[in-house]
Amino acid sequence: MYESVSNTRDAVQLSLVQLDNYGPWTVTPSPRRETDLQALQARLYATLADFVGGHDGYAFLDRIDNMIAVTDGMTVADHERLQERIRNQYPVTISIGVGVGETPTAALETASRVLQAEGSAQDAERTARLATAGPVGETSGSLTVAHFDVIDVTGEFTDQKGAGETSLAIQRATVSLASYLREEHEGMARFVGGDNIIALCPSLEEEAFEAATAHVQATTGIPLQVGVGEGETPHEAGYRAKLALEECRETGRRIDRFGPQATIDR
Amino acid sequence: MYESVSNTRDAVQLSLVQLDNYGPWTVTPSPRRETDLQALQARLYATLADFVGGHDGYAFLDRIDNMIAVTDGMTVADHERLQERIRNQYPVTISIGVGVGETPTAALETASRVLQAEGSAQDAERTARLATAGPVGETSGSLTVAHFDVIDVTGEFTDQKGAGETSLAIQRATVSLASYLREEHEGMARFVGGDNIIALCPSLEEEAFEAATAHVQATTGIPLQVGVGEGETPHEAGYRAKLALEECRETGRRIDRFGPQATIDR
Amino acid sequence: MYESVSNTRDAVQLSLVQLDNYGPWTVTPSPRRETDLQALQARLYATLADFVGGHDGYAFLDRIDNMIAVTDGMTVADHERLQERIRNQYPVTISIGVGVGETPTAALETASRVLQAEGSAQDAERTARLATAGPVGETSGSLTVAHFDVIDVTGEFTDQKGAGETSLAIQRATVSLASYLREEHEGMARFVGGDNIIALCPSLEEEAFEAATAHVQATTGIPLQVGVGEGETPHEAGYRAKLALEECRETGRRIDRFGPQATIDR
Amino acid sequence: MYESVSNTRDAVQLSLVQLDNYGPWTVTPSPRRETDLQALQARLYATLADFVGGHDGYAFLDRIDNMIAVTDGMTVADHERLQERIRNQYPVTISIGVGVGETPTAALETASRVLQAEGSAQDAERTARLATAGPVGETSGSLTVAHFDVIDVTGEFTDQKGAGETSLAIQRATVSLASYLREEHEGMARFVGGDNIIALCPSLEEEAFEAATAHVQATTGIPLQVGVGEGETPHEAGYRAKLALEECRETGRRIDRFGPQATIDR
Repeated sequence: MYESVSNTRDAVQLSLVQLDNYGPWTVTPSPRRETDLQALQARLYATLADFVGGHDGYAFLDRIDNMIAVTDGMTVADHERLQERIRNQYPVTISIGVGVGETPTAALETASRVLQAEGSAQDAERTARLATAGPVGETSGSLTVAHFDVIDVTGEFTDQKGAGETSLAIQRATVSLASYLREEHEGMARFVGGDNIIALCPSLEEEAFEAATAHVQATTGIPLQVGVGEGETPHEAGYRAKLALEECRETGRRIDRFGPQATIDR
Repeated sequence: MYESVSNTRDAVQLSLVQLDNYGPWTVTPSPRRETDLQALQARLYATLADFVGGHDGYAFLDRIDNMIAVTDGMTVADHERLQERIRNQYPVTISIGVGVGETPTAALETASRVLQAEGSAQDAERTARLATAGPVGETSGSLTVAHFDVIDVTGEFTDQKGAGETSLAIQRATVSLASYLREEHEGMARFVGGDNIIALCPSLEEEAFEAATAHVQATTGIPLQVGVGEGETPHEAGYRAKLALEECRETGRRIDRFGPQATIDR
Repeated sequence: MYESVSNTRDAVQLSLVQLDNYGPWTVTPSPRRETDLQALQARLYATLADFVGGHDGYAFLDRIDNMIAVTDGMTVADHERLQERIRNQYPVTISIGVGVGETPTAALETASRVLQAEGSAQDAERTARLATAGPVGETSGSLTVAHFDVIDVTGEFTDQKGAGETSLAIQRATVSLASYLREEHEGMARFVGGDNIIALCPSLEEEAFEAATAHVQATTGIPLQVGVGEGETPHEAGYRAKLALEECRETGRRIDRFGPQATIDR
Repeated sequence: MYESVSNTRDAVQLSLVQLDNYGPWTVTPSPRRETDLQALQARLYATLADFVGGHDGYAFLDRIDNMIAVTDGMTVADHERLQERIRNQYPVTISIGVGVGETPTAALETASRVLQAEGSAQDAERTARLATAGPVGETSGSLTVAHFDVIDVTGEFTDQKGAGETSLAIQRATVSLASYLREEHEGMARFVGGDNIIALCPSLEEEAFEAATAHVQATTGIPLQVGVGEGETPHEAGYRAKLALEECRETGRRIDRFGPQATIDR
C-alpha cells in the first residue's frame, strides 16, 4: 500500500567524511601494498558505519576515501568523537564537512563547500578538521529512504550470467538511477551491495518512483523495484523501506511504501 | 618508459567469492539494520583482502556480496583455508568458484559457471562450496596490472566540485573503462577507492591503453592516466603499476610502464 | 594533589557479557582453528569496547568469553542494540546480565545472578538473553577509577628481563591487586595491557590506595603507582585517573588524584 | 590413549611482537580514550592471530602490547610482511624478536634478548625493527601443545559463582600452571579465553602432566584436565590437543594425548 505522508521534514543533515591527505600517504615512502590499503579502507568504513549506526544514521562507501553519512541528530560533539576514534585506531585521520539542506543534494553541496574551505584534501597541514553549516543536530520531522533492487537478480543474473556482465549491469543501473534522482529530485542514491541501491530523497509521490524505475529500465534494460519508507531517523525510514521492499518481493508490486504509521517490531 | 614485455603468462586465475544465501539472511527473521550489514560486509571483504594479500594476490569489492580475487598461486587447500576462516569468524559462509583462463574475462566466466553449477546463490542448502576448473594454483609467467587514476582529481574535482558530482563522474569513468577493456581486450577493471581503477589485462601495447583512456575521455569527459606493471604475481605487477603511475604524476606522461626488469625495493 | 571528593554516587552499573554456548560451538562439528577463535574473540571484544565507549563506559576483556563493562547511563534499549549488533556481525550471540549495586562487587554479583537465572552458559536454548536488576540507566553522581601501573616497567622489566618472566610478574601483581581490592573494598581490578591495571572502586582515601600498593609490593615484589580519578562517567573518571598517573610519572609521587573539579580538555 | 612420541623436534621458534613506543603514544598529546585503545589493541592482536594462523602458527595475547607467537616455519620475509601489514593498517608499528631454542623458555629468552639489543621499547627511534637469532624458518620435527581447561567450569563456576570470583580463580590457576611449567619444564602456558590455557611444551611423559595439574589443584584448588597433541606445526599439534581434550570431556579421563599418528580430518 502506498500511504500518504505527513510531517515531512524540511531539512536533512549529511556528513562528508574525507581521509586527510590519503593519496600521498598511500605512496609514501613507496607505494603501499594494495590489499593492505583495501583492508584498511574497508575497516575504516566499517567503523564509520557502526558509529553512525549507533546514532540511527546511515553510511555510504561512496568513493571510499570520501564517504557520506546521513547524520540527522548527530551533534558537533558526536562528530568530534568519531574523529577521535578514527585518529586513535587508524594510521590516517578524517576531516568532516557537515551540511544541513532542504534536499540531499543541497546538504551534500554544503558539506562539500565547508570542507573545501578548510583546505585541500591533499594539504598535509589540514588534519582532522570539522566544518559545519546550519543547525547541526537539530533537524526533525520525517525523512524518506527508498531501497531499490533488481527484480529477480538471482534468477536473471547471479545464477545465469557471468559475474563480469552482472557487475557491469548493476553499475550501469546505479549510475542511471543516481543521476536521475539527483537531477530530477535532488536525491542521493548509492550502491550498498548485491543489487541494492539506497536513496535518500525528498518526500515523493508514487509516480515519481515509477518514473525513476522506468528511466533505469529504458536506459539500461534493468528492471528495478523499490520499497519506500518514512521515519524520524534514517534507520527508521530505511527499516520501513526494507519492509516495503519485502512486500514487493512477496506481492509482485514494483513499488510499495511504509509510512510513519507502520509499526516497527524493533 | 614503456618497456617491451616478454614471458607473458598464458593464463590467469580468478576466484569468485559469493556469500551464501545472503539476501534472504539479511531479512531473516526481519530486515537487519543496514549499518550493521554494511560494517559486516566491509570487514568480511577486509578479511578476504588480507588473506589474498598474504598470497601476493589482489581482491576487489565488486558487488560486495560477490567479490573477485586474483589468486594466481593459491591452491585448492588455500581456498579451503579461506572458507574455514570466514566460517569461523562471520555469521555467513562463502562459496567460491575458481577459474583459470587465457584472459581475465575467460577466467571469470569459468569461475562463474562452475560456481553456478553448485546451485543457486540463494539455495539455503548450498553452503561453503568450492568449485574449480583448470590447473588451480599452477599458473606462471608474467601478468599485467594497469592502475588508472583521474588526472589532477584533487584540483579538478575533490577540492572544487560537490561530492555528489564527483562521485558520479568517477562512477561513469569506471563503467566506461570497465566496459571498454572487457569488450576490446577481455580485461577486468574495478574501482578501488578515490579515483583509482585497477585493471587486470592481457599484455597490451601502449596504443591499446591510449585508446582506452581516449575512449573514457570521449564518452565521459574524464581524463585518465595509467601506470602499467608486469610481474610474476598480482602484487608484483600491481606494485610496478603504482610505480609507473607515480612516474606519470611526476613527468606528466599519461602512460608509463614498469616491466619485469624494473627493480622493486621490497 | 590528592583532592577531597564529594557527590559520590551510591551505585554503579556493571554488565556481564557472556558468549552463548560458546565452548560447545568452538568444537562443533570439530575443533575450530585456535587462531581463528582468538581473532574472533578479540574483534568481538573490540566491538564491545567501541560500543560501550560510545556511551562513555569502560570495557574489560575479563575471561574473553565473559566480558565485563561499566555501563552507567546505558539503558535496556542500549544493551539490546549491542546484542543486535553482535548478532548481525558475528557467528555467536551474547547474553547480558546488568546489575546495579553500591559497590562494583555487589553490582557484578547481581549481574551474574540475574544472568545465571536465565539458564546455563552452555544451554543451547539460551540465546541473546538480557536480564537486569535495579534501576538500569539511572545511576548518577561521581564514580572512581584507579589506574595502576608498574613503576619504571620498561627500565626494570621490558628492556631487561625475558618476556616470560615479565609476563608472569605482571600477572602476579594483577591477581594480588584484584584480590586485595575485592576483599578489602569490594572494588574490581582488571589487566588492560602492558603493565596497566584499571580498577573501579568505591571512593577511597589516599591511605587505602597506599595500603593496596603496599600489599602488592609485599606479596609479589612489584612496585605500583596509581592515578585516581573521579567523574560523572567511567570515561571521565578514567581520563582523570590517567592524568593523575601522568602526574605520578612526572613527579615521582606514587599516588595522585584528579577530582571532579579538574578540568578536562576534551 | 596416551601414545608414545617420536621424531621430537629439538627446537621451537617463538616471536616476541612488541608495539613500538606504545606507552608514550597512548598519552600523547593527552591520554587517549581507554576504550579506543582497548579496541585498537584487540584488533591488532586479531591481525597477528590471523597472520600467524595463515602459517599454521599460534598467537598469544600475553601483555597485549607484547604478544607472543609460535612461528615455526615462518621466515624472515614472512615476519617483514607482518610488520608491513601492521604499519599499513594501524597507527602504531611493531618490532619483533625471533628466537629459536631447544625449549619454549629458551626460545623466548633469545627472542627477548635480540629485541632488547635493538633498543628500548620506549625509544622513539626504534621503529619496526626485526631481530633474529638462529636458523629462522628452519625448525622441523614434531612439537607438543597441551590444552588445559577446568573440569566442569560451567557447572562449578560460570553458572554458580559470581563472575568476579570465577575470574580470579581462573587467573590464579593460570599463574600457577604457567609458573610450574616454566620452572619444571621450560614450557610456556598462556590463558586463551574462558577456562582454557594452552601450553607449548617439550615432549613430556604423562606423569609430568599429572604432576602439573596436581600442582595447580594443590596451590589453587582448581581441578584441570589436559589434552596433549603432537604435530609438525603448532596448528596440527594444537588441533590434536583439542581432540584429546574432547576425549577427556567424554571419558572422564583427566589426561589424553593424540600423537602424530592420529588422523586429522582437516
